[in-house]
Amino acid sequence: MNTQSAVNLHHQLAKITEHWSPRVIAQLNDYYFKLVKVKGDFVWHSHEDTDEAFLVLEGQLTIKFREYDVELKRGELFVVPRGVEHCPVAADECSILIIEPRGVVNTGAVSSDLTAATDQWI
Amino acid sequence: MNTQSAVNLHHQLAKITEHWSPRVIAQLNDYYFKLVKVKGDFVWHSHEDTDEAFLVLEGQLTIKFREYDVELKRGELFVVPRGVEHCPVAADECSILIIEPRGVVNTGAVSSDLTAATDQWI
Repeated sequence: MNTQSAVNLHHQLAKITEHWSPRVIAQLNDYYFKLVKVKGDFVWHSHEDTDEAFLVLEGQLTIKFREYDVELKRGELFVVPRGVEHCPVAADECSILIIEPRGVVNTGAVSSDLTAATDQWI
Repeated sequence: MNTQSAVNLHHQLAKITEHWSPRVIAQLNDYYFKLVKVKGDFVWHSHEDTDEAFLVLEGQLTIKFREYDVELKRGELFVVPRGVEHCPVAADECSILIIEPRGVVNTGAVSSDLTAATDQWI
């Protein structure tokens, strides 16, 4: 009897059509795993109360900081420290797994057209 | 100027030769990202105070529970709920990313030859 099943990241990604619109796929204590497809420039923002982990699943992502950039390819992980301004950018579509506490707003304290719901499960 | 770089999961995995010996690769608040290579049967155990997330990077993993099994292939994620007895098993070598709070012991309250250090960075 198999009463639970694993979450297949690529099957779930295939359901996502919008950019910059994170979808929750799993919960670990008070943390969420979110899938998001991105393309183009996001907005500069920070998260005052938490670090934020990015794992690139497909494509390439640049996380811009004020003094340097971090380049992430498929299979690469980076943790943005709390309180540090950053701006994710992807020339071409890129698929990312984000891990962060429940309730974290994607644009931090910045209000933007790209500000998304924090609790949208797929 | 690129003063920080991402963690490449596969480059880090290539450094791991032991089975069932988790290596920390990144920290997110008070959580750790750990890489581990497994083969064979682990020990039945539970974590009373925390959920535990498994993402299979290479190979296949079975997480046995008392009433059912969960099968994970590459690119599949499962969160073992706190307090639930489980036993990871892999017929062939399997590489996993584990996300859980700092200080979690791999065998829970069970003492085993497979009990590993909780804080070993790679």
